[in-house]
Amino acid sequence: MEPPEFFDLKAYLSKRKAVVDAALEACFSEPEGPISDLMASMKYSLFADGKRLRPILCLAGAEAVGGTETDILTVACALELIHTYSLIHDDLPVMDDDDLRRGQPSNHKVFGEAVALLAGDGLLTEAFNLMAEAELTGSVSPSALLKVIGLIARASGYRGMIGGQLVDIQLEGKSADSSLVEFIHKRKTGDLITASVKSGAILGGGNESQIQAITSYGERIGLAFQISDDILDIEGNSIEMGKKAGADEQKGKITYPASVGLSRSKEIQAELVEAAIESLNIFDQAADPLRQIAGYIVERKK
Amino acid sequence: MEPPEFFDLKAYLSKRKAVVDAALEACFSEPEGPISDLMASMKYSLFADGKRLRPILCLAGAEAVGGTETDILTVACALELIHTYSLIHDDLPVMDDDDLRRGQPSNHKVFGEAVALLAGDGLLTEAFNLMAEAELTGSVSPSALLKVIGLIARASGYRGMIGGQLVDIQLEGKSADSSLVEFIHKRKTGDLITASVKSGAILGGGNESQIQAITSYGERIGLAFQISDDILDIEGNSIEMGKKAGADEQKGKITYPASVGLSRSKEIQAELVEAAIESLNIFDQAADPLRQIAGYIVERKK
Repeated sequence: MEPPEFFDLKAYLSKRKAVVDAALEACFSEPEGPISDLMASMKYSLFADGKRLRPILCLAGAEAVGGTETDILTVACALELIHTYSLIHDDLPVMDDDDLRRGQPSNHKVFGEAVALLAGDGLLTEAFNLMAEAELTGSVSPSALLKVIGLIARASGYRGMIGGQLVDIQLEGKSADSSLVEFIHKRKTGDLITASVKSGAILGGGNESQIQAITSYGERIGLAFQISDDILDIEGNSIEMGKKAGADEQKGKITYPASVGLSRSKEIQAELVEAAIESLNIFDQAADPLRQIAGYIVERKK
Repeated sequence: MEPPEFFDLKAYLSKRKAVVDAALEACFSEPEGPISDLMASMKYSLFADGKRLRPILCLAGAEAVGGTETDILTVACALELIHTYSLIHDDLPVMDDDDLRRGQPSNHKVFGEAVALLAGDGLLTEAFNLMAEAELTGSVSPSALLKVIGLIARASGYRGMIGGQLVDIQLEGKSADSSLVEFIHKRKTGDLITASVKSGAILGGGNESQIQAITSYGERIGLAFQISDDILDIEGNSIEMGKKAGADEQKGKITYPASVGLSRSKEIQAELVEAAIESLNIFDQAADPLRQIAGYIVERKK
């Protein structure tokens, strides 16, 4: 099914980003006292003009199954905290050693490595506080919320994102077959993206087949997203991306282009997006945002 | 109230430690595949002969209010994962830079800094998965479990343990008044200890006044525990402790002995233990383990 022409994705993303940004601001409004450096470090990365893709996917996942925003927004924010923590830790010298992120100096370049490490820890931990404290006003049961907390913890934990990051750094400079590339990409990026949209579907009150369809969608765009990151690293513009292009090749990273070539990578990416949109066949126009986001993921410039 | 003479604390701690150790073993029984280094690193620190004080406090807190072990054990394990992650990150060169922990080389000395960082992240994240997935068989409601997850996240997050660690490293080599020492100690160590025993009381089905009494107990032994750590660093034996004595003074750490002197530190510690035991006056002998643990905390050699 082709996404309808009339849907204004740019306006949708911008409106949703504003909702998420406002909710995130409200999460950190306490007095800071002796921990002001830690708070500044957490906020520096959290409000560094992120796309808010994971929160928006969570909201759009709920929307597809007829859920309401109120019950989902706190979990959506928590997903952004987890994503931000992962960027701070990934950029550290002992990991990817990146000096630039979203066009600004990396967290540790501004606050030092010790504070950056603790800011990452703080964001990760606070994500779970936010979720546990989510005020459930609608149809969401405490059991459903526990299910989502477990899902997000597994996706971002050693079985998922952290495991992907480990293998990613361990295989730097080595050759690997394409199954291992998929292993890394699915975990490093795909699992949290899948968990984001699936959480929205669960909290939005989706039934089993709806949740399954949205999970398939998430797995496909999650992998497509990381492949598009690989491609951007080759074809992208450092200024638009806000980070240095060509870094993957320089570091000998295991990527799709390095493993199957640039042209085949683009084919795989296009197939994944098409399959992702097909996963949504059971939904009406309530899933249009998800359909459009699938296309956006591969067309983005940063 | 004096703890009764007949209670065998050593046997109690040893029995409870065995239960916790077995439950922890069962948490990491999956096949490992490409993430075997990460799993090895997590397990290395998790099974490095820890005292399991936080899990035992959680179980003893539940016991005091008449709760059953089954419902609490998973949360007890999660507390040990969080404690272990904090030790791994604290030992990193950018933090306290400690080469030795529990008589063995620190995690990063064995697995390297990148894997140690990820192992810490992995343990922290898995703690929340364990709690979210806890199988509730008895009187524990999903709402009570969410309450406990939030409590533990706040205690170990930027408002608590992480904030304490930040101020601890920021004030190294500086002089600070005793209010700031209390700020650090309460957060760095006290908050998670308080959350441990309070979680047990909540999950064990304690009423408001029971939970309040156990929280006061936790706050007092939590601070006493960190003061005893300070004193051990001066008076302790490196071999018994499994880490280098005198490290605090060498690093210019803000400690109670440095701030109010060794003799006054011991007085404060004794007052806290007495007050902690007094907090438990509303309980019968079901709280004897907690009473005895209060004494153990200041008498321990490691």
